[in-house]
Amino acid sequence: MNYRAVFYYIGTILKVVTGFLLIPVLTSLCYREWDALLPFLYTALIFLGGGFLLAPVPPKKKKFGSKEGLVIVGLSWVIVSLFGAFPFLFCGVTGYFDGVFETISGFTTTGATILTDIEAAPKGLLMWRSLTHWLGGMGILVFLLAVIPSSDGSTFQLMKFESPGPAVGKLVSKMRHSAAISYFIYFALTVLQVIFLLCGGVNLYESVTLAFSTAGTGGFAVLGSSAETYSVYVKIVLIVFMLVFSINFNVYYLLVIGKFALAIKNEEFLGYLLFVLLSIAAVTACVISTFASFGEALLQSAFAVASISSTTGFTITDMAQWSDGARAILAIVSIVGACAGSTGGGLKFSRVIVLVKTAGISLMDVVRPNGVHIVKLDKKPFGRSETESVAGYFILYCMVAAVSVLLLCLFGNSFEDSFYSMITTFNNVGPCLSSTVGATSPYTNFDWMSKLVLMVDMLIGRLEIFPILLLFAPQSWSRHF
Amino acid sequence: MNYRAVFYYIGTILKVVTGFLLIPVLTSLCYREWDALLPFLYTALIFLGGGFLLAPVPPKKKKFGSKEGLVIVGLSWVIVSLFGAFPFLFCGVTGYFDGVFETISGFTTTGATILTDIEAAPKGLLMWRSLTHWLGGMGILVFLLAVIPSSDGSTFQLMKFESPGPAVGKLVSKMRHSAAISYFIYFALTVLQVIFLLCGGVNLYESVTLAFSTAGTGGFAVLGSSAETYSVYVKIVLIVFMLVFSINFNVYYLLVIGKFALAIKNEEFLGYLLFVLLSIAAVTACVISTFASFGEALLQSAFAVASISSTTGFTITDMAQWSDGARAILAIVSIVGACAGSTGGGLKFSRVIVLVKTAGISLMDVVRPNGVHIVKLDKKPFGRSETESVAGYFILYCMVAAVSVLLLCLFGNSFEDSFYSMITTFNNVGPCLSSTVGATSPYTNFDWMSKLVLMVDMLIGRLEIFPILLLFAPQSWSRHF
Repeated sequence: MNYRAVFYYIGTILKVVTGFLLIPVLTSLCYREWDALLPFLYTALIFLGGGFLLAPVPPKKKKFGSKEGLVIVGLSWVIVSLFGAFPFLFCGVTGYFDGVFETISGFTTTGATILTDIEAAPKGLLMWRSLTHWLGGMGILVFLLAVIPSSDGSTFQLMKFESPGPAVGKLVSKMRHSAAISYFIYFALTVLQVIFLLCGGVNLYESVTLAFSTAGTGGFAVLGSSAETYSVYVKIVLIVFMLVFSINFNVYYLLVIGKFALAIKNEEFLGYLLFVLLSIAAVTACVISTFASFGEALLQSAFAVASISSTTGFTITDMAQWSDGARAILAIVSIVGACAGSTGGGLKFSRVIVLVKTAGISLMDVVRPNGVHIVKLDKKPFGRSETESVAGYFILYCMVAAVSVLLLCLFGNSFEDSFYSMITTFNNVGPCLSSTVGATSPYTNFDWMSKLVLMVDMLIGRLEIFPILLLFAPQSWSRHF
Repeated sequence: MNYRAVFYYIGTILKVVTGFLLIPVLTSLCYREWDALLPFLYTALIFLGGGFLLAPVPPKKKKFGSKEGLVIVGLSWVIVSLFGAFPFLFCGVTGYFDGVFETISGFTTTGATILTDIEAAPKGLLMWRSLTHWLGGMGILVFLLAVIPSSDGSTFQLMKFESPGPAVGKLVSKMRHSAAISYFIYFALTVLQVIFLLCGGVNLYESVTLAFSTAGTGGFAVLGSSAETYSVYVKIVLIVFMLVFSINFNVYYLLVIGKFALAIKNEEFLGYLLFVLLSIAAVTACVISTFASFGEALLQSAFAVASISSTTGFTITDMAQWSDGARAILAIVSIVGACAGSTGGGLKFSRVIVLVKTAGISLMDVVRPNGVHIVKLDKKPFGRSETESVAGYFILYCMVAAVSVLLLCLFGNSFEDSFYSMITTFNNVGPCLSSTVGATSPYTNFDWMSKLVLMVDMLIGRLEIFPILLLFAPQSWSRHF
């Protein structure tokens, strides 16, 4: 284990995040929230101090392998969350433990909130809260790769383990350029959404926080009512951009470099669009009787499906009061999740395609034992080891889900609360669809042990199991592993 | 498609089952239930008529492939269930639809009942009901293979698709002998249980029905209170025999031929015992505060775990009123299920071992991408195609479970009711652990569409997905497939 490299990358991340603290500070300055300035100053000092303590100078030997990559990714997310909770504590909005919950929920782009009175919090703090979504969506390590020069291939490990999806989307051959292009597309789309929101009469502060939360497919809103009070135009802008950020960024890259045909023919992209449309139709059919008009039911369903499928989690009504059928559809939608290579969570659509095809092939194998049946994606044969790794991932996913629900039940939560709170945190969605918790309610009524389970679920979900699971394995910490 | 062979096997099954109708007839004669004799006579005529219609003479070409094997297994189970429902209708105990539910629940060894007043039904009918468990447990086709001579290897398909578990347990090289040995062990153990029950003061009729239901890991009892009113001795006999019938019959065969060391070292057997003991300890810890003494809590937990893990489904208390934690443990226990090659349901323990090892290997592959990691069972390497087929089975299992819960929710059942009724039927357990349904209650409150979903789940669960799924595929019925 190359400990120096591990410390170096984690320390550098802390330094980089210090720079981003300027955005909430500026917000507080604009709104003359003088009380919020000192908290951010203290936080900045802690981040910088931690950064210089861990990474005083670059290590001589920067090269590292898979294991270090996993540990850097897993540990950096935990440490940044532990540090990022300080503004909540220093502003007196939450205790430290709840602040960590809120920050993990932010960085993992879950959007499950613990705040009972959101509007009472300083606007600078809420900007920081939404900014954690934006940073976590594309990944802080990926940002690091985009800005710091790297001479060897080790950094590929970081991008591989931090990016969502079964295969890392290397857009161009050079890792640094790939990361930079991803962040450029990400930044440009965020700015575009801010402009669209400003056109709808939303003020700059709300537009930027909404765009940060949408871009990261996070879901923190700055109003207690989430997106309910906005105009139909703003709601439609949110639907469109939630879906935009749940599509594989490769598609945008192909569009940018003019390869329209290739972008449009992408199997995951087309399948995902079809899946979203079918889900909207199914949910509309379930809820139509509870709304005054078809248009209203369609808007509500489209918003719910876009929000849950992209794993953003904005709400315009308490979906937890919908019928069990509608909620079961939304539960499946959140498990399926967004496309690989997007900022969304869940299993990822390309994995679901591979899983469905693997199941189909095991059926074919039984009927025609002598035939040769291969999984194909985008008309290319999918290697056996890739199929196996997707299947292995799915098994681990189910095991984590089962253990989480079991623990939550053992800690005294009802089965429905346990299931839906696991589903929404593990898939990084946010609102809990259990009728007794409520999609628009904060997570205040869970005891600290349940909150701990949900926090681990959020991290495991965002980092796709392996980095966090290995942090718990003693072998990861042995020198000779 | 060799239709003649399909008809021949299904017809022969109908003839064979006619013979078994003698057992309920004898029961009714003993108890002077003259009203129940005509219904059984009519049923016998229908079975015989159907049998001779489908299989007047043996076909010239008996040889067939996988596809015919699947269709014979799937179709014969559906048809035998449709025919086996007539005694319930003719005795005036249920309507035809509910009779089919009860018969499917019987043959699939689920034991979910629709009868609201069990004691009011004729004893002959209840004997028939328990007998369906015994026939379904080891499989009627396997019985057929044991008694009719077969010249070619085609019949291997039937045993493969009807026997539970990832790999068929061919005890000896000759298929017919394998089937006969299995049935001999099955019969001997059933007789042994009857003797133990008689020693406990249970009358012959109840002993035989209880033994039939235990042997098939079914769970139909002849008392409305299931096993609650029996003595502690009888409860312990039931616990032991439920576990006995949930263990791979290969183990008994090895014991019979004197290979003790090989029997004891079986990885599935040892793992399963450990799993059952741990589950009993966990459930005891959850429920200890609700019982007067540790002994009572231990007995209750041991009975519940043995009943659910073997997928039998006898009850001695309404476990649905236990805490969410205890019920979540029991839900996981029923998903894991019994050993392969037993009469129990669920995923089967050897599959779970392979799944857990596959997940572990996908973790290893990430940490050490250059290493070679192979799943081993009983110290023998497990082939890639076998691992893939277990993974494919698990994916299909999850898909069927998700679709079932979704449909049940859409038909207006609550999420908890839908989840627990799917779990208990799909894994062929029986009692529904949802607190609003109740483990000791009949399935009367579900509407007919929900009952249909549960029936299909029972069949899919017992026949391990493929045979039933392929009945719905139009390709199965084309001549040129």
